[in-house]
Amino acid sequence: MELSVTQENLSRALSTVGRVASGKTQLPILSNILLQTDGSQLLVAATNLEIASTLHVGAKIISPGSITVPARLVSEFVSSLPKATVTLKVENDHLLVSSGKFTSRINGVSAEEFPELPTINEDEAIRYTLNPGDFKQALNQTIITASNDATRPILTGIYWHSYEGALYLAGTDGYRLSERRLVETDSEVAAIVPASTLQEVLRSMHDDISEVEVLFDESQVRFRAEGIEITSRLIDGNFPDYRQLIPATSEVSAKIDRSEFMRIVKVSGLFARESGGSVTVTVDEDAGSLALHSIASELGENTSEASADIRSSGQVTLNSRYLAEALNVIEGSMVEFRFSGKISPCVMSELGENPNYIHIIMPLKS
Amino acid sequence: MELSVTQENLSRALSTVGRVASGKTQLPILSNILLQTDGSQLLVAATNLEIASTLHVGAKIISPGSITVPARLVSEFVSSLPKATVTLKVENDHLLVSSGKFTSRINGVSAEEFPELPTINEDEAIRYTLNPGDFKQALNQTIITASNDATRPILTGIYWHSYEGALYLAGTDGYRLSERRLVETDSEVAAIVPASTLQEVLRSMHDDISEVEVLFDESQVRFRAEGIEITSRLIDGNFPDYRQLIPATSEVSAKIDRSEFMRIVKVSGLFARESGGSVTVTVDEDAGSLALHSIASELGENTSEASADIRSSGQVTLNSRYLAEALNVIEGSMVEFRFSGKISPCVMSELGENPNYIHIIMPLKS
Repeated sequence: MELSVTQENLSRALSTVGRVASGKTQLPILSNILLQTDGSQLLVAATNLEIASTLHVGAKIISPGSITVPARLVSEFVSSLPKATVTLKVENDHLLVSSGKFTSRINGVSAEEFPELPTINEDEAIRYTLNPGDFKQALNQTIITASNDATRPILTGIYWHSYEGALYLAGTDGYRLSERRLVETDSEVAAIVPASTLQEVLRSMHDDISEVEVLFDESQVRFRAEGIEITSRLIDGNFPDYRQLIPATSEVSAKIDRSEFMRIVKVSGLFARESGGSVTVTVDEDAGSLALHSIASELGENTSEASADIRSSGQVTLNSRYLAEALNVIEGSMVEFRFSGKISPCVMSELGENPNYIHIIMPLKS
Repeated sequence: MELSVTQENLSRALSTVGRVASGKTQLPILSNILLQTDGSQLLVAATNLEIASTLHVGAKIISPGSITVPARLVSEFVSSLPKATVTLKVENDHLLVSSGKFTSRINGVSAEEFPELPTINEDEAIRYTLNPGDFKQALNQTIITASNDATRPILTGIYWHSYEGALYLAGTDGYRLSERRLVETDSEVAAIVPASTLQEVLRSMHDDISEVEVLFDESQVRFRAEGIEITSRLIDGNFPDYRQLIPATSEVSAKIDRSEFMRIVKVSGLFARESGGSVTVTVDEDAGSLALHSIASELGENTSEASADIRSSGQVTLNSRYLAEALNVIEGSMVEFRFSGKISPCVMSELGENPNYIHIIMPLKS
């Protein structure tokens, strides 16, 4: 293999793809990046056996070939080079990388030892073309409610599914739940995508992407944007029937400025550290206020209050971190917070008839 | 005690002073901040017994008094409040903090249990008034060469001393040495200031400071700028006679663009991780180049080169991290790098006859 590429393109490819290559692996080759000529392009790829990330870079190919080299070293080296042409040349199992007065020899491993990259039959796959802004927002809104508990693998994923003519994303860790309606669709889909894959997809998406393609086959999902492809296994199993958990109506409702709500949650949370984040929300129709109260027995206590448009009065105790995370991803300057007594689920959403994002938090015992 | 202050002033004081209060202490009260009325001002103070940091804040005093409260909680609480007036009121051993619809009770400890703050007889102290830019640069240039080794306490400090009519700062960890000439002076001073104090001083200095005062008495130093005062003990003992270690002349000299030198050091350092940072510098008069070579036996090797204005040729092996840190703090677009063979000290400085900063690195065995 011998070829030349621009430093900018190669560096961007190595840093994007390289994150999937792990230093902490039983199989040393998984910490390497695959470099392989593919027609008139250079394929840059890494995998951790769950996720594969690939990117094609325009290159001037002098002779075809392939090699794998340590991801971290090659990424850091290329990113430190000046913006100029970089020459890559394989000699035995070494990769010679040179640019101007910089010359390195990096010890590699034959590409034959690299795991096969996953393939998808794209003609038969279910395919969505999404607006990158909506796509990123939907991921950010749902992955925060996925579980980290590996003993319940289904809940570590986000449920992509069609329902009444629309594509929905949903996630729950048993304590909270989120649902985002993304686009209208005629296709039938029901797939659980690991939240860790979606996090990697979010990190890989540059700001200047014009669209994102998502393809599902029986057991895999592929995300594609501007030459980057991330392919991941799906999680086996049936996602819980979460819709029955969303209360259609609630007794008490507060419509409140989102940034004011965030501020009182932040302040109140400071005093809730000793009590596992527990804050008591008091909604008072006469006072027209939503107040948070938290007690740190050793340190003191806090009451923080904000004006709100209230229907009925009541009290419920919640984890302040969950409140903060929900407020952080709800769109719009105002939010609705509604609940029915101390033990039924609290519902948060933007204002309006048919919000495209709903966030549920289960109360704590107070 | 009862008073009101602006949120901005109080928050800035708490966060500046609060860093000195440590959560990791045998003496719980050291993790508290002292709040005490002082005439028409509020004194905000913290100490770890080595360093005391104090700040005065303009306040509307309703009744005098004092209390100590947990530094982290009160700082975070006040910084989260809206920009408005904050009222502080002591009731028993509680501090009531309120602002608009935010009310907190913070459990405190009587100020009588707080350690006495250090005093300096300012009339008899040796005093320097320094330009904040030069002052910060001098600290940044010298503290990187102070030792972290607590078994050699003298080397964990920076030596402030007068010599031939100028104030100098010097530091050495035995592997490298730095000396900065700061201002002309008639006073005689010789004091070893803990590098940790200087780091705290650097963190506390805002960008909009117009001058810094430094005062020395027999056993203490005080730094003062815009109402902030940091007072620290000095380190007992005699600083080594380091001047004899600085070679007046060297056989080999390279004058080189500083940013190019930084880049080749960074690249070369990537391949030097396995060998404890070891890179070999080759200066070649005929080629007019300075080249770095590093070898990572497992991973590969690198040669990086830059043009330089050379006198004589030679080779020396150094720690690439030391080179990088020195280049980072030398002023100017060009640096001089000079040495005499493989075992004598390397000298780095800005160009010119009488540079105000000199950085020495001892070679590694090659």
